[in-house]
Amino acid sequence: MSNHKVVLAYSGGLDTSFCILHLTKDKGLEVHALTVDTGGFSAEQLKTMEERALQLGAKSFRVANALHDYYDQCIRYMVFGNVLRNNTYPLSVSAERMFQAIETAKYAQEIGAGAVAHGSTGAGNDQVRFDLAFNVLGQNLEIITPIRDMQLSRQAEIDYLIEHGYNWNWEKAKYSINQGIWGTSVGGAETLTSQKALPEDAYPTQLTEKDPSIVELQFEKGELQGVNGQSFVHPTEAIQALQKLAGPYAIGRDIHVGDTIIGIKGRVGFEAAAPLILIKAHHLLEKHTLTKWQQYWKDQMGNWYGMMLHEAQFLDPVMRNIETFLADTQEHVSGKVWVKLMPYRFELQGIESPNDLMNSAFGHYGEMNKGFTGEDVKGFTKILGNQTKIFHSVHKK
Amino acid sequence: MSNHKVVLAYSGGLDTSFCILHLTKDKGLEVHALTVDTGGFSAEQLKTMEERALQLGAKSFRVANALHDYYDQCIRYMVFGNVLRNNTYPLSVSAERMFQAIETAKYAQEIGAGAVAHGSTGAGNDQVRFDLAFNVLGQNLEIITPIRDMQLSRQAEIDYLIEHGYNWNWEKAKYSINQGIWGTSVGGAETLTSQKALPEDAYPTQLTEKDPSIVELQFEKGELQGVNGQSFVHPTEAIQALQKLAGPYAIGRDIHVGDTIIGIKGRVGFEAAAPLILIKAHHLLEKHTLTKWQQYWKDQMGNWYGMMLHEAQFLDPVMRNIETFLADTQEHVSGKVWVKLMPYRFELQGIESPNDLMNSAFGHYGEMNKGFTGEDVKGFTKILGNQTKIFHSVHKK
Amino acid sequence: MSNHKVVLAYSGGLDTSFCILHLTKDKGLEVHALTVDTGGFSAEQLKTMEERALQLGAKSFRVANALHDYYDQCIRYMVFGNVLRNNTYPLSVSAERMFQAIETAKYAQEIGAGAVAHGSTGAGNDQVRFDLAFNVLGQNLEIITPIRDMQLSRQAEIDYLIEHGYNWNWEKAKYSINQGIWGTSVGGAETLTSQKALPEDAYPTQLTEKDPSIVELQFEKGELQGVNGQSFVHPTEAIQALQKLAGPYAIGRDIHVGDTIIGIKGRVGFEAAAPLILIKAHHLLEKHTLTKWQQYWKDQMGNWYGMMLHEAQFLDPVMRNIETFLADTQEHVSGKVWVKLMPYRFELQGIESPNDLMNSAFGHYGEMNKGFTGEDVKGFTKILGNQTKIFHSVHKK
Amino acid sequence: MSNHKVVLAYSGGLDTSFCILHLTKDKGLEVHALTVDTGGFSAEQLKTMEERALQLGAKSFRVANALHDYYDQCIRYMVFGNVLRNNTYPLSVSAERMFQAIETAKYAQEIGAGAVAHGSTGAGNDQVRFDLAFNVLGQNLEIITPIRDMQLSRQAEIDYLIEHGYNWNWEKAKYSINQGIWGTSVGGAETLTSQKALPEDAYPTQLTEKDPSIVELQFEKGELQGVNGQSFVHPTEAIQALQKLAGPYAIGRDIHVGDTIIGIKGRVGFEAAAPLILIKAHHLLEKHTLTKWQQYWKDQMGNWYGMMLHEAQFLDPVMRNIETFLADTQEHVSGKVWVKLMPYRFELQGIESPNDLMNSAFGHYGEMNKGFTGEDVKGFTKILGNQTKIFHSVHKK
Repeated sequence: MSNHKVVLAYSGGLDTSFCILHLTKDKGLEVHALTVDTGGFSAEQLKTMEERALQLGAKSFRVANALHDYYDQCIRYMVFGNVLRNNTYPLSVSAERMFQAIETAKYAQEIGAGAVAHGSTGAGNDQVRFDLAFNVLGQNLEIITPIRDMQLSRQAEIDYLIEHGYNWNWEKAKYSINQGIWGTSVGGAETLTSQKALPEDAYPTQLTEKDPSIVELQFEKGELQGVNGQSFVHPTEAIQALQKLAGPYAIGRDIHVGDTIIGIKGRVGFEAAAPLILIKAHHLLEKHTLTKWQQYWKDQMGNWYGMMLHEAQFLDPVMRNIETFLADTQEHVSGKVWVKLMPYRFELQGIESPNDLMNSAFGHYGEMNKGFTGEDVKGFTKILGNQTKIFHSVHKK
Repeated sequence: MSNHKVVLAYSGGLDTSFCILHLTKDKGLEVHALTVDTGGFSAEQLKTMEERALQLGAKSFRVANALHDYYDQCIRYMVFGNVLRNNTYPLSVSAERMFQAIETAKYAQEIGAGAVAHGSTGAGNDQVRFDLAFNVLGQNLEIITPIRDMQLSRQAEIDYLIEHGYNWNWEKAKYSINQGIWGTSVGGAETLTSQKALPEDAYPTQLTEKDPSIVELQFEKGELQGVNGQSFVHPTEAIQALQKLAGPYAIGRDIHVGDTIIGIKGRVGFEAAAPLILIKAHHLLEKHTLTKWQQYWKDQMGNWYGMMLHEAQFLDPVMRNIETFLADTQEHVSGKVWVKLMPYRFELQGIESPNDLMNSAFGHYGEMNKGFTGEDVKGFTKILGNQTKIFHSVHKK
Repeated sequence: MSNHKVVLAYSGGLDTSFCILHLTKDKGLEVHALTVDTGGFSAEQLKTMEERALQLGAKSFRVANALHDYYDQCIRYMVFGNVLRNNTYPLSVSAERMFQAIETAKYAQEIGAGAVAHGSTGAGNDQVRFDLAFNVLGQNLEIITPIRDMQLSRQAEIDYLIEHGYNWNWEKAKYSINQGIWGTSVGGAETLTSQKALPEDAYPTQLTEKDPSIVELQFEKGELQGVNGQSFVHPTEAIQALQKLAGPYAIGRDIHVGDTIIGIKGRVGFEAAAPLILIKAHHLLEKHTLTKWQQYWKDQMGNWYGMMLHEAQFLDPVMRNIETFLADTQEHVSGKVWVKLMPYRFELQGIESPNDLMNSAFGHYGEMNKGFTGEDVKGFTKILGNQTKIFHSVHKK
Repeated sequence: MSNHKVVLAYSGGLDTSFCILHLTKDKGLEVHALTVDTGGFSAEQLKTMEERALQLGAKSFRVANALHDYYDQCIRYMVFGNVLRNNTYPLSVSAERMFQAIETAKYAQEIGAGAVAHGSTGAGNDQVRFDLAFNVLGQNLEIITPIRDMQLSRQAEIDYLIEHGYNWNWEKAKYSINQGIWGTSVGGAETLTSQKALPEDAYPTQLTEKDPSIVELQFEKGELQGVNGQSFVHPTEAIQALQKLAGPYAIGRDIHVGDTIIGIKGRVGFEAAAPLILIKAHHLLEKHTLTKWQQYWKDQMGNWYGMMLHEAQFLDPVMRNIETFLADTQEHVSGKVWVKLMPYRFELQGIESPNDLMNSAFGHYGEMNKGFTGEDVKGFTKILGNQTKIFHSVHKK
């Protein structure tokens, strides 16, 4: 380690609070706490986090506002690709953690730190995301991971903090919650089993709105630009507006069961009203405006993009190539989508787009054919089935 | 046409009723009406259909009970492959129509008919499914399609029937309904637009059960064998039992917007409680019992299988190869899945399986690592990111 | 047909010569012969073609020089995608035919023709390429195809031409040859069987150079820019220079057995020295400069691109999306490749590139590891095999 | 480590000879040398290896003859899948190393050893293959890797052996050679650069046969059963017979540039006459006997199978599923293939099969259409291009 400066990816929680104290006190390091904000913190929370970081001994505290970058470099592609891991999970944590890691590595280089630190355990995906980003982007940075290395229990961390005078009512919450613009994860208790669902009150957002309503989403080249007729300067604002409307319906809850990067199976609850509505509405608009093979290859690419993003490989150049592809497919994905919001669920109502390929000028499915005749279809079918027919003839003999 | 016998794929509806009369009267053919039952008809309905077929002039009427074959040769693979076309539609009509076509071709050869007939229009997928199966399996059969060839409107058909004395209160239903074991489709009115959802009363099954309940599904090698502890002789019975429980919740409604075989976009509503619950429950069990790459390739194969099945290419031998693959992946997909049924929706609760790979002996995601250490993960991450690191180093210069 | 003007895609061969006479004489049409030159004609040939077209009754003759467009809009993507159909055939004819069809449709609209005509038979791919391009781009154009419609034999065409005074020594060549910048196809006799190879003298280019030589190819972002140190204004010139060097070695001969668009199997010989050397050299350069997953997805995309191009679907917008993807992957595919030319074969010698990821600073495969340790690999392997280990443990019981 | 018994994967080369001495002498272990024979050793070589192992201090020496298992469980699937890594390399070493690792793990359990050892360096793929198989199959076995752990140079190993009295003329060969039934690899000198090809004399098999000859290969359900009319009890014998014919032509040489499991690029020469001829001949037979989509999905599956096999993931259950798929596709891949052997190259001549889908009863490509008409193709093309036409119409506005 070239000097005593270490940048800590600081979330304000127990683990990274412990890290500040431990690294300062026991290791004699100069800790610079960095909080990367991807839409999950209120101003008040950030204020408290700063105070605590400094009290625990951090030399400095800084907030990197990465919300727009996060959207511009990642969320938009998850929308373009309709990315739901295992057909379920919008990568609420996976994507933002990767961004936090990248921002941390950059900041460490900016201030000439000799090390970076994170508070991950040895049993999850986050350690891989942090380590990998640090390995790739901060080639001479040492990586310090006290929780993983000492295999500390939460109780041991609390004891240590209290012992040093930081008796701050450390949350012994039943669930560990991670909140961001792309959804909130809920882990613990039931999610550690294969059998049980999360109880109603485990979810941070409770049902408070019971009257159905219709929301109109305006897309422009695949991006959400307007909600109920209101336009926004940046799509993140539109997403937040949608979340504000849909959250009270307790929409978008589910449990993701997936393969972690480290080979074990993991299970985590989440609530993500705006991301799920946005992806499903976007997908519907694509069904109307893209050709069959565009949709087919977008599925392939979007699925792979989500997998690699989930698995910490965001920095592989193939990801840039896939982003270019996905963006190129969005040229005509513009129009309105209507969504009905109801308690715990939503329904896609329909779309309107100048690029709608379900265009009555070419006939109505099942009812009317324009631009082709029944004879055309007979010929089509004959040729379409020609190889199959030859196969069956050859093998009938 | 080698003789005057024609086998008509008869559904009892307006189109095929017209066909019997027209082919008998105007064309002088000997019409043998065949109804292929894939779980969509009651005994009473079949009785009525028979009477009417004969009254309209059919020489014979026959029901081919294809329910078990349909399941054994097709539905089970749709379950194994978690097949939902465009991530939405369980192929309720597509799959059964293909089976009906195949049965019709077989029957025509059995009775030595010189022709087969179907009642499809020239603007839908069904004509391709019928024609293609007939082309492949009945190589010398002529194909007769009066509705398509004469481009008849429903009103013209009704006029013709009434004129000939068959004034049977021909349904002028707003929606065209097709019912089978794998779901019921609802087309017409709103589905001909891009904008509108179907109204509540367009769906044949209305909400009659409002109290939530939990259903336990027992899978054995990927197939549904038991419901709430009750076992069944054939999986179709288990599916019907599940439908009986879930139907009254009005679960499984949606609208499918898709690419027809003939290149236009089509939109159709459907309700399919049992199929959707079954597929989602099966998928969850797979998430626990299959490895990551098993799931990845099952997704590829299942998706393609669904596409080709939808597009009338069920007889291509690649479909048999894919079925073999899908079946082989199901060896360990056994266990229980609990599903909570509620009005208009359901929630997967969890699973129990001796083959669950989310096994606490190997650690809990995010909490505890067993069988590997933090150092292992550090090494893993270093190598995992090695190529990306080299790439970024080479391109930093 | 809105007027009497017809644009004929004219190749100067027997079929299209017949068409001029037939359409003029028998149909009373005003024939405008268009030859789309994609690198297959000499100035002298074009001169003769013009004279004959006019003598046969064509109202006008025109050459559209599409070589640069063909490269810019198609060949470069085939190189980027390393496109070889069935891992064999560089789409020598398929791609250029599509371009000729597009140019013909454009010209017909330009001069306000009411119809387009082509000389394809009813048993090949070309009819689909022409028809499809005309259907898509020339929506009100009638399509006239005398050879297909009248099912004429070559002898019948010759008789007709001679009868009308055009006794021009019509070639009764054993093989039908199609020449263009991307290769020359050779069909007939042996290629109509499954058993026989083409004899040496069936190939237009004979072996005349027996001394091995090394050629140096310079790539810039995936495109061939220089040959043996010489630069060129346009890549087509570089390709022609390479062909001039490699052709005399009789390199690049093979037989393609493939699935036609119309479902039958087809077999065709070809010689394509420059295309094959170029694709293989380009591929080698990619192996050094792209990451594993870039190569994986390029393979997927390139393969699909080739299939759709072969099958006349060049105008589907997914093709533009794929082109964008492929171009984006080429950013670092620059450097030199050395190729040894020998009679009937070539050997890739090696490459040199500033973007080579096989960089000794990171170790030599099998010999030296830099940037990681044996311990890292142990940890890597433990985690990499973790899920497999869990699977085998669970199923050992 | 539960006891002092260690099973060493012993190849007779410098590295594993060093290991015997080192583990016995310095570590006080009881070394059981196991040589897994996958077709690369003569009886004489094995005799010498045994003598030396025992002289170096091994407690026992054993040969596991894995040739048939290797074929039955792996090579046949590489043939079915036409597996060539990066479209070049038949996995000559990758596949057999995995099998050697599996056999070593089994033997260790059989004799109750507490550890396994291998002689791999820390810079290659083999360490991952051995470690991974040992981790998965021998869960409590310790893994000992002296060369990797001590980072020894070859000279240091030789010095140590000589110092202890084993002055056996240790090869200081310029190239490291690995020979097996599926090909021989050649590494060193030029292969450590990106620029240079291997010289003629680096290849173990030299050109000794210059007169062209034709060999007839008989396939039965995808497997090589006969060569020039002679049948064999086991396909490995047929492969060896083919190798004996083709080897003297110096066929099948090339250089593979690939991505190692550990992220660096590696380059290795190889010669593999029989594997390359076999795969290409098999592929040709498939082009005639399989449908287009069978070939498409076989390509996908075969490619993935090769990648995972190369990357040590042979024990993932998806590999068994893929094998089942590949085997299922081979039902009709039977017939004869003729191949012309010439110095340094071979030409596929043609095939004969009762399952040939290029069947003249259905027409000849480009010449004659039977079973369909030109009108059918017109209709086909209209519908095939329908969506593209709609797309262009919508976007013309």
